[in-house]
Amino acid sequence: MKLLEERIKKDGQVFPGNILKVSSFLNHQIDTALMLEMGKEVDRLFGKDKPTKILTVEASGIAIATAIGVVMGLPVLFAKKHASKNLSGDVYSSPVHSYTHGNDYNMIVEKRFLSSGERILIVDDFLAVGGALHGLLDIVKQSGAELCGCAIAIEKAFQGGGDALRSEGIRVESLAVIERMDDSSVTFRA
Amino acid sequence: MKLLEERIKKDGQVFPGNILKVSSFLNHQIDTALMLEMGKEVDRLFGKDKPTKILTVEASGIAIATAIGVVMGLPVLFAKKHASKNLSGDVYSSPVHSYTHGNDYNMIVEKRFLSSGERILIVDDFLAVGGALHGLLDIVKQSGAELCGCAIAIEKAFQGGGDALRSEGIRVESLAVIERMDDSSVTFRA
Repeated sequence: MKLLEERIKKDGQVFPGNILKVSSFLNHQIDTALMLEMGKEVDRLFGKDKPTKILTVEASGIAIATAIGVVMGLPVLFAKKHASKNLSGDVYSSPVHSYTHGNDYNMIVEKRFLSSGERILIVDDFLAVGGALHGLLDIVKQSGAELCGCAIAIEKAFQGGGDALRSEGIRVESLAVIERMDDSSVTFRA
Repeated sequence: MKLLEERIKKDGQVFPGNILKVSSFLNHQIDTALMLEMGKEVDRLFGKDKPTKILTVEASGIAIATAIGVVMGLPVLFAKKHASKNLSGDVYSSPVHSYTHGNDYNMIVEKRFLSSGERILIVDDFLAVGGALHGLLDIVKQSGAELCGCAIAIEKAFQGGGDALRSEGIRVESLAVIERMDDSSVTFRA
């Protein structure tokens, strides 16, 4: 998606450790107009697959998932990373290792919101190694819901997570796919 | 806001410890159509105050803040609760005690996204004692930005946070204000 690629080139910052900071428009400050355009593109990609619900994970996935939900007229369900007093009843749970934050957590979704009648579109802001995405896919599998595929804002292809999932037959559509990046430039997949 | 009050009566669940669960439409699963209607109501309440940016805090504030941002054409900035590798540079920070989760955290916003030229509309999904809201107000004050006020989805008035802020002269508009609640009923402020 040209608009997102241009924005990454303009405002993204590359830091050591394969870190791409897009805090000014995607995951700290949110450009809601850009989110809406991304929502329209995801609708173009997945609308004909008739998803019934969007699944993402807190925190930064919520903004883009909400925008996509608004455009596609779908409810959004976000997995939680921490058990809290407000989460009760039967839950699906999947252990995830975060390479970004260097910690482990349980991804949790209440069972009553995900079941075999649903068609799920998974959404997240970033895909690198794929830790969070594997957790979400695991939860969809546990629930018996059907998977339409995964819509990602930015994929760092050189970290392999996206292509590994594609080779397993899972549909992964990323709006910007970064083949490589260094201090001075970001190169997108053609 | 009648639509939200009716939804709380229909789908909200009251649990011991003053907990109101609205996981089915507000803070686990998100009804994006309801979020859009709430966005329109907040626009009606605060549009004439010409905010330039929405400030919220992760995680569940992000959905409603994004919907309001989409309706009002404003960027959203969400405070983070945990320092992460992806957060660098100068930050505003405010210590917060969460009564819901029973823990303490630092609320953090990168300084470059909040400054004296801005007019800030604070948004959150819940207001009870007001811990998170005090943190957000503190950060706005530190930044020198002007405060338009606070737009809240659900205020639990019996926990006092909202009225305490109003008595300090801060404009707090809650779309549903709960005066009292028990297992069998929820009573809204007239």
